[in-house]
Amino acid sequence: MTRDDIPTPALLLDLDRFERNIRRMAAHARAAGKNLRPHAKTHRCPEVARRQVSAGALGVACAKLGEAEVMARAGVRGLLITTEVVSPAAIRRLMQLVSAAPDTLLVVDNTDNVKTLGREAAADGVTLNVLVDVDVGNRRTGIAPGEPALALARTVVAQPALRFRGLQGYAGHCAHVIGWEARQAASRAALAPLMATRTMIEAAGLPVEIVAGGSTGTWDIDVELPGLTELQAGSYCVMDLEYRRIGGRAGATLGEFEMALTVITTVVSTPTADRAMVDGGLKSFSTDKPFPPESVERPGVEFTFAGDEHGRLTVTDPSRPPRLGERIEFFPPHCDPTINLYDRIYAMRGDTVEAVWDVAARGRSD
Amino acid sequence: MTRDDIPTPALLLDLDRFERNIRRMAAHARAAGKNLRPHAKTHRCPEVARRQVSAGALGVACAKLGEAEVMARAGVRGLLITTEVVSPAAIRRLMQLVSAAPDTLLVVDNTDNVKTLGREAAADGVTLNVLVDVDVGNRRTGIAPGEPALALARTVVAQPALRFRGLQGYAGHCAHVIGWEARQAASRAALAPLMATRTMIEAAGLPVEIVAGGSTGTWDIDVELPGLTELQAGSYCVMDLEYRRIGGRAGATLGEFEMALTVITTVVSTPTADRAMVDGGLKSFSTDKPFPPESVERPGVEFTFAGDEHGRLTVTDPSRPPRLGERIEFFPPHCDPTINLYDRIYAMRGDTVEAVWDVAARGRSD
Repeated sequence: MTRDDIPTPALLLDLDRFERNIRRMAAHARAAGKNLRPHAKTHRCPEVARRQVSAGALGVACAKLGEAEVMARAGVRGLLITTEVVSPAAIRRLMQLVSAAPDTLLVVDNTDNVKTLGREAAADGVTLNVLVDVDVGNRRTGIAPGEPALALARTVVAQPALRFRGLQGYAGHCAHVIGWEARQAASRAALAPLMATRTMIEAAGLPVEIVAGGSTGTWDIDVELPGLTELQAGSYCVMDLEYRRIGGRAGATLGEFEMALTVITTVVSTPTADRAMVDGGLKSFSTDKPFPPESVERPGVEFTFAGDEHGRLTVTDPSRPPRLGERIEFFPPHCDPTINLYDRIYAMRGDTVEAVWDVAARGRSD
Repeated sequence: MTRDDIPTPALLLDLDRFERNIRRMAAHARAAGKNLRPHAKTHRCPEVARRQVSAGALGVACAKLGEAEVMARAGVRGLLITTEVVSPAAIRRLMQLVSAAPDTLLVVDNTDNVKTLGREAAADGVTLNVLVDVDVGNRRTGIAPGEPALALARTVVAQPALRFRGLQGYAGHCAHVIGWEARQAASRAALAPLMATRTMIEAAGLPVEIVAGGSTGTWDIDVELPGLTELQAGSYCVMDLEYRRIGGRAGATLGEFEMALTVITTVVSTPTADRAMVDGGLKSFSTDKPFPPESVERPGVEFTFAGDEHGRLTVTDPSRPPRLGERIEFFPPHCDPTINLYDRIYAMRGDTVEAVWDVAARGRSD
């Protein structure tokens, strides 16, 4: 099967680029003396997770319990669930997951939740590995750094069925700061309280074995912190337009990682000389960013969304009008929610489909 | 199984409201002497399609061939594929679909495509039922009204394996015009050339049996046109925030159809008094509209997106702080791309899960 045989719209992964991305991040973490637990919420694909682990990752981070269940079932271990698990039914599912994958880590940010987890784990004869989730300015989940985090760590330690392993501090608000120096300054400011919290907790006699954080945007920034033990960057393996534009240390683009993910579409209508329609729209690309998909090595057209199932191409170079049936690829604005629209990834070696990978955790936000 | 047992985030359909919506549109079309072929791109769910047909619809419209394949396999007939089918592989799939479901209609807007379809259908011994797709100002697919449409209709008629059945003119740009009178004026202006094209083609001796168009927004506007034979409204069966705000004939809301679709979430973090986090974000709601999900009968909180997997609730009423583990439902901004994120619909009768329906055509934009 070749590129031209794939029904469109479809999600394509350039394996050469993808493999270089995986190797580059793994080598970087190794050289910096950090562990790597890439975020699987980016790809939701067990085959990608397996390749990340083969390249040296400890396991993968999962945004949700449902995502972790799929990864565990596929044999992936070293899971970290980065969102709190609070509802009774979810806690029951968690116990089953941990029975199958005992090294799974979870995060907590609430005293009552810690006590409930401790009670349920004890009743099930399970030990839960726990990180305290610290809000480093992302204003999402996480307890305040400093004394509140220390108090919560003590609550964890007081539960015999819970094992306090360390901290999570995800500075999502720094990941896409444009310009390397500005991003470095933002991340330093965000993570300083996390580092201080680590010191405070260790001074209180509780060993902090793991401090997890970092993003694709701060991959070469956060490793300079001695107190950070592992990176949970996700997007680097496939990249997207949002990350490409933030700028790397060297220059204008985050050039260290390559744009490996595209959506292939077909021109299904050429109604006027200045306009053509492709068969990918709101259901084929992420729509949460203020910029549209960008054509790949196909100058002369500009994409705008035109409903659920269509993209409108404005012809900017009349000497290259799109042909009916022409296949045009686009880089998606945001990789995670784009991949989450597809059941499979076509893994391409040049123009050949080398494999088709199941996005097995697609839709598993539960 | 009750509402409280459903793993979150999940998609819920209020059956009482849904059934009233289905009945209301069916009765309206019947009273107006129009046929109804609701757009299945809204729901992508064969069970919803079957219920629409049971209530009196001719069949369903499908945005794409892949969607139609799923509906056909589920036994739904009277399909209209509203996007042009142009690639050789897609045309082969189309022939198989039409062999199984011979009453399927497709649309064309290009002479070369008509000739290819005619040749392939003749080679396969298949007859294809064809509508000429007319651009009524939506600037998406469709040939220009008037002479170009007539010429294309003649090209269809000249192909022995194609059967010219009529016209499609979808005025998507009018569907969400706010204010009933403004919307009426917009739709009248858009559809006037379609009506004139119908007259011109019939005057040329080609019977125009079908003229398909209309949206949920113009459901009680377009039926006043004698030349329109069928409505392809979709969203009315479940509704969404975008349609609710356009205003009906009577007043401030499109009150004739009820908000039947919600996403249920769980509060997974209550880190500060003014903020709580729910477990639904960019992967749980449509993100293509400039307004966020809105909580259902749960005042005191305002939702903003906070990444792939989280919604941030700003507490606007300190007397009603969200509790950890509290379940909160939201109306989605845009129904079609929201449903397309989920593999199943929980069909609710009050607080009881009466059935779980498979969104079998989810992701089938191909």
